[in-house]
Amino acid sequence: MVAYKADWQKLRRFCANLLMKEGMCESDAIVCADSLVDADLSGVESHGVSRLTNYMKRLRTQVVSHESNYTVEKEYPGSLLVDGNNAMGMAVGKFTMTRCIEKASENGSCFAAVKHSNHYGTASYYARMAAEKGMIGITGTNAPPNIAPWGSSQKYMGTNPIAIAVPTDQEPMVLDMAPSVVAMGKIILAAKLGKSIPEGWVLDPDGKPTTDPQVGQYGTLIPIGGPKGSGIAIMMEVLCGVLSGAEYGPHINHFWKDFEHPQNLGHFFAAIDVDKFCGICEFRQRVGNMIREMKALPLSPGSQQIYMPGEIESIRREERKKNGIELSESVYQELKTLAEQYNVKFEL
Amino acid sequence: MVAYKADWQKLRRFCANLLMKEGMCESDAIVCADSLVDADLSGVESHGVSRLTNYMKRLRTQVVSHESNYTVEKEYPGSLLVDGNNAMGMAVGKFTMTRCIEKASENGSCFAAVKHSNHYGTASYYARMAAEKGMIGITGTNAPPNIAPWGSSQKYMGTNPIAIAVPTDQEPMVLDMAPSVVAMGKIILAAKLGKSIPEGWVLDPDGKPTTDPQVGQYGTLIPIGGPKGSGIAIMMEVLCGVLSGAEYGPHINHFWKDFEHPQNLGHFFAAIDVDKFCGICEFRQRVGNMIREMKALPLSPGSQQIYMPGEIESIRREERKKNGIELSESVYQELKTLAEQYNVKFEL
Repeated sequence: MVAYKADWQKLRRFCANLLMKEGMCESDAIVCADSLVDADLSGVESHGVSRLTNYMKRLRTQVVSHESNYTVEKEYPGSLLVDGNNAMGMAVGKFTMTRCIEKASENGSCFAAVKHSNHYGTASYYARMAAEKGMIGITGTNAPPNIAPWGSSQKYMGTNPIAIAVPTDQEPMVLDMAPSVVAMGKIILAAKLGKSIPEGWVLDPDGKPTTDPQVGQYGTLIPIGGPKGSGIAIMMEVLCGVLSGAEYGPHINHFWKDFEHPQNLGHFFAAIDVDKFCGICEFRQRVGNMIREMKALPLSPGSQQIYMPGEIESIRREERKKNGIELSESVYQELKTLAEQYNVKFEL
Repeated sequence: MVAYKADWQKLRRFCANLLMKEGMCESDAIVCADSLVDADLSGVESHGVSRLTNYMKRLRTQVVSHESNYTVEKEYPGSLLVDGNNAMGMAVGKFTMTRCIEKASENGSCFAAVKHSNHYGTASYYARMAAEKGMIGITGTNAPPNIAPWGSSQKYMGTNPIAIAVPTDQEPMVLDMAPSVVAMGKIILAAKLGKSIPEGWVLDPDGKPTTDPQVGQYGTLIPIGGPKGSGIAIMMEVLCGVLSGAEYGPHINHFWKDFEHPQNLGHFFAAIDVDKFCGICEFRQRVGNMIREMKALPLSPGSQQIYMPGEIESIRREERKKNGIELSESVYQELKTLAEQYNVKFEL
């Protein structure tokens, strides 16, 4: 049920004002607010302002630091090791990708690993930063466990997302995906609604297929392509967690339930400067041609249109910037409660 | 049917001797031979010496150059653009990953794109080169089309593999995967054997699910995770084909059938020096601990053991180095024919 249509810029200002009340500096508060509102604009509501109450609680309990004290620990022409010092993940992410882009612009490419960080919102947010500068951006993060290594019934790896964004002659093309068939959120929602789920989404806690979300929500998410998706999730734990010195797998602390122990998440970021390869003008034209060729191919049965990675999100973003972001009754009430609690003007 | 058990070193020498008869220099011939024999050692026979007759024909018809004239076209501290100049893909691949490793050792990481190349064998071969030097190695290639963009019924992207290898405190952990549920080779084999195939492997030329490999072999391979695998395949076309200035999708020429037009494949290679991040000693220990934790988890029903990415291949490699590589009657006869044709001593 839609309670309210919010203007994206007012919503972003409101979120930033709240975050500043917990001691964040204005520039980092705006980054966090922008990431949340961008998720709502793109239709990824699971990563949007519906999380704000939890972020505020995490700042209030100091399980996340409100300070901007992330630092570069090691630096080479093509690499960065960043210590997030338990700051908000979005602030750490934006800082690191910005540095990556600067270094790639000078040295061709840069790969960064980040430790002591927190949930950083949607991965595509940072990958798009590079694409908007004429670079290919790649990023990933680890997350609390939900996937079992192939052959096991016990969850170990997170639904670790990876995002890749490339510039084109129009909007950037952006892939942002987790290595599981569906997100755990879909299982939990089906359980709440009392609906059954298709086989192939989740295994029960004994590792057996189930269509019952009541059981499935305590099991493990099935990785895409079986051992392939499992392998991707494992490699993401290595690139994000092990390489940086952050935690990995079941050693990561819970975002929703644990307000005592920092998450100690890890991320990686990479920027590749297209101008150091075929050149950005040729690249934009060739990617554009490739996209137009693909979109003109014959449709498969039941398909209305061929969408490129990130295209639906991009269409939604433009539409919602014009017409507003629909907030559900529960999210609207949560925001209203926060406004009263922190004495922040509630104007959306 | 097993016709012969070959010693891997003799088989490698034999392959190199043949390739030299088509004008390749010894060092590059050994690289190509090593890649082929390594695939047979690892149990990836599809990329092993069964391809040698075709490689020899490609060299003989000069659709592939026997020369080692690959060159670095652009170079920055963290990047390389390599022109393969239509040399054998394995030689270009080894050259490029070697340079990537050297540059990463100095600058933290290096990303390389390659144009004007050819089929480069298994991707894991190059990723492992980095892991054996204490680095994370990543590589991918594009390939002739077999996958349709999600929503279309027509093939466009290749079964573009990606490989990631990481050092551990034992053998490197190596993921090497294509973004399709199965390889087209499995469909063609089922068609030859007159067997049906499971739904979910392939779509017929109209984009409908089929269990008939006779029809499926002219259709498209289903990507893992639907739009996710499709997105991975598209991004690989960008990273390998578009970025380097190589061809992409349906513009790539056929490896088995076209002996007139160079393939103009593209690859990418990346090396990340672990010592520029958490340090190689800590990394080896932490990855080792992670692997041991995962392998000790409860088994899922029907599973005998939890294998890490690349573990089965690594076990096979050791076993076959000791006990020999089994060659089928048809492959044995093909090699014997080549030996006679080129007057090379046939000793395996």
